[in-house]
Amino acid sequence: MKLNNYIRDIQDFPTEGIIFKDITPLLGDASAFAKASQELLALVGDQHIDKVVGVESRGFFFGGVLAKELNAGFVPVRKPGKLPYTTASQSYALEYGTDTLEIHEDAIQPGDKVLLHDDVLATGGTAAAVVKLIERLGGEVVQCNFLIELSFLSGKDKLEGKMIKAAITY
Amino acid sequence: MKLNNYIRDIQDFPTEGIIFKDITPLLGDASAFAKASQELLALVGDQHIDKVVGVESRGFFFGGVLAKELNAGFVPVRKPGKLPYTTASQSYALEYGTDTLEIHEDAIQPGDKVLLHDDVLATGGTAAAVVKLIERLGGEVVQCNFLIELSFLSGKDKLEGKMIKAAITY
Repeated sequence: MKLNNYIRDIQDFPTEGIIFKDITPLLGDASAFAKASQELLALVGDQHIDKVVGVESRGFFFGGVLAKELNAGFVPVRKPGKLPYTTASQSYALEYGTDTLEIHEDAIQPGDKVLLHDDVLATGGTAAAVVKLIERLGGEVVQCNFLIELSFLSGKDKLEGKMIKAAITY
Repeated sequence: MKLNNYIRDIQDFPTEGIIFKDITPLLGDASAFAKASQELLALVGDQHIDKVVGVESRGFFFGGVLAKELNAGFVPVRKPGKLPYTTASQSYALEYGTDTLEIHEDAIQPGDKVLLHDDVLATGGTAAAVVKLIERLGGEVVQCNFLIELSFLSGKDKLEGKMIKAAITY
């Protein structure tokens, strides 16, 4: 089974000129979901992980699975106003304007070994902001783990010094 | 371990007068996350499940875990405009106004045995809308599965005839 057979290209989503990688056919197929879970887990190897940080919202699909399988806690990073307790927040530049992400300030303990997970590494702006949030709380980012890396967008450049792994690379 | 020791009450979130059940302490604790996963799975028993439908966004945390453990596919139900392919949508009444949820029209096949999962059953409006979406696509809702049921809000009344299970009941 090749996982990229379960990724569907959607033209002009969310805006014109973008070819969106739709992972829902992969999610919806029991065998592909299991295989993707195994491959994401294999990327981590036998490293000890205290917390898996998943990024809203598509980073939640496999983020929970990774937490369960790694015997770690799960921490959601969310859009502003979604987390109910005291948060740390981090803004980052988009092509036009800025975006902001939040984490609960008690979600990471100093010294925690953290696996950052999201569905797609594109330009890296989101992941870099999440790394900052984790490190501001004293966590150590052991790996940035993605289902898909769009290597032509050079997201790795924004995550210098971090271990970056993806199950599928375009 | 009692799971409700890991649920935190947040006063006046998201609006004044609401006591919000914050599940992030449960998510963030490796043992509590594993135990909650086991309890949610035990609610399903040995029923065959083709698809787990998780509701945006907090239904995604354990929705993926349930799909993996039940050897099922995972289907996200999302807010309007988030799913990239052709969708079916369902509106439902809120206290003031309406809200809408969407599902990919190819996400459920006729006859699929479906487990609906969300974090909280409150008034039942969201879950009832998701049941309609699943049934419009020909799926059979085998169980409505929640981490928390707020029984004093009588959400079950909106899900008449459905099997409703929750790991934690208030």
